[in-house]
Amino acid sequence: MTTGLPFDDIRDLFTRLPPLDGEAVAGMRDRDAELTKPLGSLGRLETLAEWLGAVQGTPRPTLNRPLVAVFAANHGVVAQGVSSFPQSVTQGMVSNFAAGGAAVNQICATYGLGLKVFELALDYPTNDITEDAAMDEAACAATMAFGMEAIAGGTDLLCLGEMGIGNTTIAAAIYHALYGGSAADWVGRGTGVDDAGLARKISAVERAVALHKGSSSDPLELLRRLGGRDIAAMAGAILAARMQRVPVILDGYVVCAAAAVLHAAALGILDHCIAGHRSAEGQHGEVLRRLGKEPLLDLGMRLGEGSGAALAAGIVKAALACHTGMATFADAGVSNKD
Amino acid sequence: MTTGLPFDDIRDLFTRLPPLDGEAVAGMRDRDAELTKPLGSLGRLETLAEWLGAVQGTPRPTLNRPLVAVFAANHGVVAQGVSSFPQSVTQGMVSNFAAGGAAVNQICATYGLGLKVFELALDYPTNDITEDAAMDEAACAATMAFGMEAIAGGTDLLCLGEMGIGNTTIAAAIYHALYGGSAADWVGRGTGVDDAGLARKISAVERAVALHKGSSSDPLELLRRLGGRDIAAMAGAILAARMQRVPVILDGYVVCAAAAVLHAAALGILDHCIAGHRSAEGQHGEVLRRLGKEPLLDLGMRLGEGSGAALAAGIVKAALACHTGMATFADAGVSNKD
Repeated sequence: MTTGLPFDDIRDLFTRLPPLDGEAVAGMRDRDAELTKPLGSLGRLETLAEWLGAVQGTPRPTLNRPLVAVFAANHGVVAQGVSSFPQSVTQGMVSNFAAGGAAVNQICATYGLGLKVFELALDYPTNDITEDAAMDEAACAATMAFGMEAIAGGTDLLCLGEMGIGNTTIAAAIYHALYGGSAADWVGRGTGVDDAGLARKISAVERAVALHKGSSSDPLELLRRLGGRDIAAMAGAILAARMQRVPVILDGYVVCAAAAVLHAAALGILDHCIAGHRSAEGQHGEVLRRLGKEPLLDLGMRLGEGSGAALAAGIVKAALACHTGMATFADAGVSNKD
Repeated sequence: MTTGLPFDDIRDLFTRLPPLDGEAVAGMRDRDAELTKPLGSLGRLETLAEWLGAVQGTPRPTLNRPLVAVFAANHGVVAQGVSSFPQSVTQGMVSNFAAGGAAVNQICATYGLGLKVFELALDYPTNDITEDAAMDEAACAATMAFGMEAIAGGTDLLCLGEMGIGNTTIAAAIYHALYGGSAADWVGRGTGVDDAGLARKISAVERAVALHKGSSSDPLELLRRLGGRDIAAMAGAILAARMQRVPVILDGYVVCAAAAVLHAAALGILDHCIAGHRSAEGQHGEVLRRLGKEPLLDLGMRLGEGSGAALAAGIVKAALACHTGMATFADAGVSNKD
């Protein structure tokens, strides 16, 4: 179809989201009832396995190619002194990912997860959102389309992560614009800013939202104005995963800003996503409450990189292994409940 | 040394617990501060790695031979109609473990954990505790000594699990005897008894504790009276692990009864243990509070078999992999905080 504006192509996808597969879930519950354990005794491991089947659209879901996709971007708002690390650290950490030296590399190696890093024009930070819109519509739509490529190589579980000095400020601005309250309600210390840095961060979020919020209540318009290429690309990745029936594990505070934009645009659009963990950054717990997601882990982590999502993927692997690999009462010759 | 009674040999160990290694922790914190991440941003993963070092007594802890040890036993109290599964299921599940068909097998395979199953005279259930002491002192001490063998083959992380129809009743009796309240406060539905079964279970716990509690406030005496060979053996395993500097991951409601007996006998005796998860069985959360343990996972599981401890071991593996494998800022050429 031909549409006038790139955002219209994306909005068109919102109306064509494939439903989750209730029949697959019913089939999995039939099998679960025969497995050598008391009914319900694996708790959330059981619902995790069902979720994989519901999204993949089969009572025999797979986890043969789990993937952590990390999106890296730079943000003009760092000019406002919102981070305790210099902007060059974004590129430095991308090199660290390539060399296998970051936390997410170790977690991927522990659980056998693939890792891909997507660099988003690091030499060209988005505009400073306290002064201008982060991107124009064409750039935002193109970045979302780029993010959709995350699953192009094929995967049956997508874990999302990000790296970008300044991006907790961007995420806070998105939450403040979407959910109201005061800027201070949403701003955390990110990589660990001191009190003066925190005050600068709150001020930047206040000014950015004051500048852009009035212009539109449309979530995609908010995304391009408050932006972040990382967040726009992850929104594209989440949307593409939904269209292609790929389950998604969200990471923490910044990844959920991409999810929040989509959630504001179309109810039910995150039904293929789970929250990997509750981050210690900002008000991530409150964000999850608004997204209707109960986090799998709550370990005080706030690193980003997809580290919490990757850790959760280890749990999901065990959940599916139990569903797939366990013997039935009949197989094992074990007496079922009286 | 020569002592009069077997329990005295065990009590002697209580006075010779090796302290945790603060120097190892200090060394690990020095390294942690150099790793390519904001300080503290891996949250509990950082303290888990430190705990391994503190217990093993080295700033370079290993996880080369993680082991899940499952203790299986039968309990005379099943004559009181406290379980919805027949007693033969204990032996059936032991065969299922051997054949690789149980939940814990799948979790061990997912994370590369070893699994050993210890059968404790399944054909000779302990006495029905509503009528008699479960064991005499010699049998209880011998069972604890047998449990100490769990680590004899060598391991650097011990996850404890159990299998035994009727053992949630035994665990509830131990908690009721140790912590007071009413029997109903501590009794859960185990494998899933109906209301009538739950009433029988509560009654059995009430009668057993009324019969045995008054006789002694000594935790080891309580252990032999309310018993359970599985629980006695696990108490031995926990104690041996402490003496040999092996970190322990506790599982759920039944495993923690073994931990609770030791905790009542000697403060600090569980410093080498973490709680793998909070079980949905009975008042496990309240038990953990009394033991001073914050569970790593809270996924509504209540299976036993060490399934929650094994799942937690997957997290612990990732925690150590991050500490050991991550690059430092200097290695990676990444700028540290301004």
